[in-house]
Amino acid sequence: MVIVLGIDPGTANLGYGVVLARGRQLAALDGGVITAESREPLERRLARIHARLCDLIAEHRPAAVAVEDVFFGQNARTAFAVGQARGVVLLSAGLAGLPCYSYTPQAVKAAVCGSGSAGKEQVQRMVGTLLSLPEPPEPDHAADALAVAICHVHGAALREAIG
Amino acid sequence: MVIVLGIDPGTANLGYGVVLARGRQLAALDGGVITAESREPLERRLARIHARLCDLIAEHRPAAVAVEDVFFGQNARTAFAVGQARGVVLLSAGLAGLPCYSYTPQAVKAAVCGSGSAGKEQVQRMVGTLLSLPEPPEPDHAADALAVAICHVHGAALREAIG
Repeated sequence: MVIVLGIDPGTANLGYGVVLARGRQLAALDGGVITAESREPLERRLARIHARLCDLIAEHRPAAVAVEDVFFGQNARTAFAVGQARGVVLLSAGLAGLPCYSYTPQAVKAAVCGSGSAGKEQVQRMVGTLLSLPEPPEPDHAADALAVAICHVHGAALREAIG
Repeated sequence: MVIVLGIDPGTANLGYGVVLARGRQLAALDGGVITAESREPLERRLARIHARLCDLIAEHRPAAVAVEDVFFGQNARTAFAVGQARGVVLLSAGLAGLPCYSYTPQAVKAAVCGSGSAGKEQVQRMVGTLLSLPEPPEPDHAADALAVAICHVHGAALREAIG
C-alpha cells in the first residue's frame, strides 16, 4: 500500500490530490484546490499554502510528493510565479522528509489517458474512471493533481517490476 | 531604529544581509551566503535555506524583508529556479508575519551607487563605505543582499519624509 500526494502548482490556484494504491487498485483519499485572493500579499498566500500542505501531509502521511511540471514556453514571468509556488511545495515536502518527483504534463497525460496530447476533459474523465469516482473530479486543477499522483504510482509500480 | 533583512535569492547561492539603521547611520549586523550542494535534492536545499532564514529572523528580529528581483530576459528556466528560492524566502517572512518588499537590481544600484548601471565591484565598495566596514563585503551575493537592505532603508526613510 502506498499513498501519494499529487500537486498541480500555482500561486492563485494550487491543485492537490491524495491517491492510495493497493496493488492495482487505486482510491482517492482527498482532492481539491487551495485558492488565494489576489489582493492578499504573496508572502501570506504562500504561508497559507504551506500551512494547508503541512495539514494534508500530517493527515494522510504520504510516502512521496509528485509535482506536475509546467511548460512555460518563453514566458519568464509565469515561470517565476509558478516557481515560487513550487518552491513552497518542495519545502513543505522537504520539512516532512518526503521525496519529491516531477512529471511533465505529457507524462501525466500519457500515464492516465495513454496519450500525451489528451485534453483537459479527457484527463478528468479518466481520473474519475481510474479512481472509481461517481463523477469526473472538479475543478481541473484538482483532477490534474490526482492525475500526477496516479502517474507517480504507475511509475513506481513499473520501477518495482523492473527492479 | 529599524532592522532590515536583505536577500539576493538563488537556489545554489542565496545571499543575505542584515542592516540596522538609526537615523542616517547604518550598520551591518550580519551577512553571508547560504550555499547548497548541487547534488542535494532541491527539497532538502530549500528546507535548509528556510531553516537558516528562520534562525536569522529569530536572531535579528527584522521589521521587514527586502528581496532583490532578478532580471530574466527570456530565460524561463532560470526564472523558475530563482522563483523557487524566492517562494521560500517569502514564505519564511510570511510565517514570521514580516512584510516583504521587492526591488529591481537597477533600483538597488541607484540607491547604493547613485547609478542604476553600476558594476558589481562598485556596489561592493559603496556597501562597504555606507556600512563603515573595514573592507568591501565578500562574496558579491552577500554584498548584493546588504545593498537591497540599504535600498529598502533609504526608500522607507523617503516614504516617511514624504508621508
